[in-house]
Amino acid sequence: MTADSKAEQASAGLDRLSEAEYAAFHRHNDAYRKKFGIPFIVCVRRHSKDSILRQFERRLQNGVAAETKAALTEVFRIGALRLDQRVEAPDKLRVNGRLSTHVLDTHAGHPAAGVAIELAELSAHGEPRTVAHATTNLDGRTDHPLIGGRPIPIGHYLLRFHMGAYFARLGTPQSDPPFLDVVPIEFAVAEAEGHYHVPLLVTPWSYSTYRGS
Amino acid sequence: MTADSKAEQASAGLDRLSEAEYAAFHRHNDAYRKKFGIPFIVCVRRHSKDSILRQFERRLQNGVAAETKAALTEVFRIGALRLDQRVEAPDKLRVNGRLSTHVLDTHAGHPAAGVAIELAELSAHGEPRTVAHATTNLDGRTDHPLIGGRPIPIGHYLLRFHMGAYFARLGTPQSDPPFLDVVPIEFAVAEAEGHYHVPLLVTPWSYSTYRGS
Amino acid sequence: MTADSKAEQASAGLDRLSEAEYAAFHRHNDAYRKKFGIPFIVCVRRHSKDSILRQFERRLQNGVAAETKAALTEVFRIGALRLDQRVEAPDKLRVNGRLSTHVLDTHAGHPAAGVAIELAELSAHGEPRTVAHATTNLDGRTDHPLIGGRPIPIGHYLLRFHMGAYFARLGTPQSDPPFLDVVPIEFAVAEAEGHYHVPLLVTPWSYSTYRGS
Amino acid sequence: MTADSKAEQASAGLDRLSEAEYAAFHRHNDAYRKKFGIPFIVCVRRHSKDSILRQFERRLQNGVAAETKAALTEVFRIGALRLDQRVEAPDKLRVNGRLSTHVLDTHAGHPAAGVAIELAELSAHGEPRTVAHATTNLDGRTDHPLIGGRPIPIGHYLLRFHMGAYFARLGTPQSDPPFLDVVPIEFAVAEAEGHYHVPLLVTPWSYSTYRGS
Repeated sequence: MTADSKAEQASAGLDRLSEAEYAAFHRHNDAYRKKFGIPFIVCVRRHSKDSILRQFERRLQNGVAAETKAALTEVFRIGALRLDQRVEAPDKLRVNGRLSTHVLDTHAGHPAAGVAIELAELSAHGEPRTVAHATTNLDGRTDHPLIGGRPIPIGHYLLRFHMGAYFARLGTPQSDPPFLDVVPIEFAVAEAEGHYHVPLLVTPWSYSTYRGS
Repeated sequence: MTADSKAEQASAGLDRLSEAEYAAFHRHNDAYRKKFGIPFIVCVRRHSKDSILRQFERRLQNGVAAETKAALTEVFRIGALRLDQRVEAPDKLRVNGRLSTHVLDTHAGHPAAGVAIELAELSAHGEPRTVAHATTNLDGRTDHPLIGGRPIPIGHYLLRFHMGAYFARLGTPQSDPPFLDVVPIEFAVAEAEGHYHVPLLVTPWSYSTYRGS
Repeated sequence: MTADSKAEQASAGLDRLSEAEYAAFHRHNDAYRKKFGIPFIVCVRRHSKDSILRQFERRLQNGVAAETKAALTEVFRIGALRLDQRVEAPDKLRVNGRLSTHVLDTHAGHPAAGVAIELAELSAHGEPRTVAHATTNLDGRTDHPLIGGRPIPIGHYLLRFHMGAYFARLGTPQSDPPFLDVVPIEFAVAEAEGHYHVPLLVTPWSYSTYRGS
Repeated sequence: MTADSKAEQASAGLDRLSEAEYAAFHRHNDAYRKKFGIPFIVCVRRHSKDSILRQFERRLQNGVAAETKAALTEVFRIGALRLDQRVEAPDKLRVNGRLSTHVLDTHAGHPAAGVAIELAELSAHGEPRTVAHATTNLDGRTDHPLIGGRPIPIGHYLLRFHMGAYFARLGTPQSDPPFLDVVPIEFAVAEAEGHYHVPLLVTPWSYSTYRGS
């Protein structure tokens, strides 16, 4: 494996498989080789462990023609991503996604600054894995996107907003214990190259969120 | 201990303490007896493990006069709750709270029927403990309150709404995987005798919640 | 015309037609008689002026068989409504709708009491006509539905919530002039026998509304 | 009066006063001159007719020292605004506000493109005056801010979003007539140099708005 390959596989958590996951990957890999006679190719930087397993399961259903096409698409994506870091061109393919957030304090009517936020990747089996920490700036945004400059691995995510501490700092009246403390938002990313904006509009007694762009 | 006492202590999870929690309770109890010369009295049916520990910590700060008053208030609450089940009177004290929910499908413009919901009690240390399962009826409500006919133990809660499965059943377009699957709402109850209505207004791409009444 | 007829026609505003509306009604009526040989029949208590005009336009497109069926449906509805007020039976047809509201102050986390509300019927030509005034009670609701015990005339409506005055009374910080003062919600009723619950969740800086039930 | 003055007064609608408004301005002007011995000075580009009248009423209560300071502040603002258009400097005072909007279709989970929007200035007496027309682009925004590159006149505004037509074009199921057709949002601007972002999150059955930035 090249250095690129190793870094890519680590990014999807493939270097941290449980025994059971390891066994599942091997079982799928063997079945795939037996059916198609080639190794399973997937652009791992676009995926989480769970979505690679799902890819295995789906693509094992393919006929040879469809699967050949699927494998070539992945080769193409791997190439596009590797080239993207080395090439400057006005018409490059879009290979990067972006995940961002914004916290608006609709109690006070202004952006919520200084809110601690965590982003974790969830997996069907096993613990959440924290992939980003951030604190909102004066505009209620984070200085950098939570994920940017790369594909967003297709998978499930958990955002946690530390609102109880924020409102306490401002002296906003809350119950004791506060009705809302850490606000969790769970969502899935389906397009690795998409723009996902997942904001929080919040008072000590209510909140809303939505997929923005 | 009487049968009432035992049932009440079980309700707060005091029969399921970890080693560390058991040690903390004993340590607080000893300090309390040493300071005030009486056993620690608390109306456990109004509390979760965590909030009893917090009560210990707060009331240990009290002077004797304040603590005597606090202990009598608890005796009074215990009595009111036990009597409530045995007495009929037009002017009984309010001893029961209510926790309810409602799911409105704002994509389709009608109540969301058949949504599976779980309510779990959270604790600072240890696993969530599921305390209610329900499915929404044609009116988007549950046939019975999630908690009713008793105090709502002061503490932290997690509601989980299985929206991905609901929208899939209706054939509502969603991404793959769906942007929203299980929607979690975490909140705290501060008034054991309060009415907490925690609804969910939801589309496959957005939701809001609030403390209603 | 019977007294019932006269009261019903007044309820739809047919006794307050402008010259142009009067002319349109006559023109449609003549065309209808000419085409179908019978007078135009419509259950006016289920309609506003505008929706009666729209009925005229649509039903003039009908063939004789379809229109005969449409006219009989209206006769049946008129009868059901008149009987409803005089008959007690467990299995009566549903002839009444309900329009209600609810104001929740998500800044303070409780129902908004004492909010002045107006409901007006809108018409395509001509001024809004106020059809109900109310003030929210301690539960943030109105003591009686804004429309109830009768069909909700199919048509367009405007709800106005006097939130600026409410927040000023509570001393809630607002800008000067307040960002939100009177909050208008415009909506249409399509089912005269439906339940329309149109609530307002509001802070001095934000609000949401939805069709509930 | 200079050309600048004339253009500025027209911008606030001072060239379109009703008889009653004209009389009120004159009455206030006379009272002001009598009390302070100088003409009333106000930076009209930061105001609407209504807020100038309110300024008159408030500043007539001032003592001489406070009013001298108030008048100088206005002179300063007028100068800063006139200079702003002619001077390039890195540290210029902020003299311009911005009013923008954004429409998000939370039924479909993407920005709402092609939505017609109108912005009107409201006055206490007299008709709304349309000050901007726009149509949302693919990002759900307008190509240019509704008001930008100048102060936002302090006053009351009405935004109208033509959502019924938008959802009809997309084939989104709606009732007949649609529950929501033109969505009105009324709000006031208190800071002429502020950033007011007033978005609409909307399905055929629900919407929310808030002051963003």
